[in-house]
Amino acid sequence: MDPNAPIGVFDSGLGGLTVARAIRAALPDEQLVYLGDTARVPYGTRSAHTVIRYARSCAAHLERRGIKALVVACNTVSAVALDFLRVELDVPVLGVIEPGARAGVAATRTGKLGVIATRGTIASGAYIRAVASIRSRVEVFGQPAPLLVPLAEEGWITGEVPERAVERYLEPLAAQGVDALVLGCTHYPLLRPVIEAVGQRVLGPSLSLADGAEATAAELAELLEARELRAAGPGGLELLVTDLPDRFAEVASRFLGEDVEEIDVHQVDL
Amino acid sequence: MDPNAPIGVFDSGLGGLTVARAIRAALPDEQLVYLGDTARVPYGTRSAHTVIRYARSCAAHLERRGIKALVVACNTVSAVALDFLRVELDVPVLGVIEPGARAGVAATRTGKLGVIATRGTIASGAYIRAVASIRSRVEVFGQPAPLLVPLAEEGWITGEVPERAVERYLEPLAAQGVDALVLGCTHYPLLRPVIEAVGQRVLGPSLSLADGAEATAAELAELLEARELRAAGPGGLELLVTDLPDRFAEVASRFLGEDVEEIDVHQVDL
Repeated sequence: MDPNAPIGVFDSGLGGLTVARAIRAALPDEQLVYLGDTARVPYGTRSAHTVIRYARSCAAHLERRGIKALVVACNTVSAVALDFLRVELDVPVLGVIEPGARAGVAATRTGKLGVIATRGTIASGAYIRAVASIRSRVEVFGQPAPLLVPLAEEGWITGEVPERAVERYLEPLAAQGVDALVLGCTHYPLLRPVIEAVGQRVLGPSLSLADGAEATAAELAELLEARELRAAGPGGLELLVTDLPDRFAEVASRFLGEDVEEIDVHQVDL
Repeated sequence: MDPNAPIGVFDSGLGGLTVARAIRAALPDEQLVYLGDTARVPYGTRSAHTVIRYARSCAAHLERRGIKALVVACNTVSAVALDFLRVELDVPVLGVIEPGARAGVAATRTGKLGVIATRGTIASGAYIRAVASIRSRVEVFGQPAPLLVPLAEEGWITGEVPERAVERYLEPLAAQGVDALVLGCTHYPLLRPVIEAVGQRVLGPSLSLADGAEATAAELAELLEARELRAAGPGGLELLVTDLPDRFAEVASRFLGEDVEEIDVHQVDL
């Protein structure tokens, strides 16, 4: 395997760009190819059968581009399809749930870990399984927080509406003694300041946040290091989308944290 | 054409069930076949090319079931694809935008009409064109209110979060002298009490709301009457979906205003 081959990153849409952003910050010498399946977003409301079918077609497209590793920057796909992809692909496959769960376990001292995510991710039990699989005794309290997704996409990330929404979602966790909270959805890092401020008020001032995007980037760096697959640079990013939605540049730039007008964007058919 | 043939109703997802609900209330003797393209929802963020392609496949499926009329219970499709469908189908085709615009024009006395809808519907200019096409001098002020869609789907239809969101959306209309407001998205009737209460505070106590779903049902009744296509009964409803999403029964029941467990639901491939 060529260490200078690109890293594939895919998501149902543009939310996974927060993961691409974290990878770019941690591994600035790597070439990334990001595929957002914007024609079929969102996956979160699809059946597992459909999600697996879509995930396979995304992974196969990236594999044909000669990637050296695949990051599934989508909680829904990570929860449902990761095992299928690991069997089928010849390159290492990393999801966002296992790194997020490990970061959450490391962050809690009470042993009570909250996870906020979409309804589908919570219902899948993926975080509970991931915490159990690292032989941790930490107890997981899942809380669906679906409205934070459109709030992040709209850019309503400060002010009363997101504050009241976060408050309403975190209140049920207050009785559980939770002292660490995993941001279990790629959209949530945009709301991190509100989640942190409201969380410390509702759940206590010692609350720690664990960001699945950052944790995934850190595990990817370790994996590449261990397999001697670190690229020599220069790093870069190519964006592939299956549809060019309205406000693409605005929303993509917000998630990526840089102006996508400066980046190569191509539309592909899967 | 057989007057006892069913009426086809389609939408990108489940929001159009508010239109089916209004039709059932206005025309209780009619058989409805509702098709929700839940595998490809939402259309609002897709390109016009993609929306037209999807709309054609939905309409063709319903036409094969022998419908006597087609109601496009989706603002995005009504804005983008109605002319194509009218050319291609042999049955009358009704959208939700023209009836909503007519109801709005009838409701305003100041001649300043607000329209709240998704970003795509507002950007399409469809309500401005619809108002102009009825030779009205009413001025249209479009305001995207995209977060009201997930709020309706989540069932967050009372309390501070929807109140603050509606307030934030309506405030820009306050300076325009708007005295009537079209609910230009199939999801919004669920939030009607909040929109009415906040609207009367922000836009003035004489504010009238025009509901596109009710207006469409009323125009459909006139159309069937004029063409002698009223069914003899008994009425009924069959639900077709292209995917069975999570929480289908809960969300569908909320939009339809009755328990979908009591209704025939079939999954179809388009």
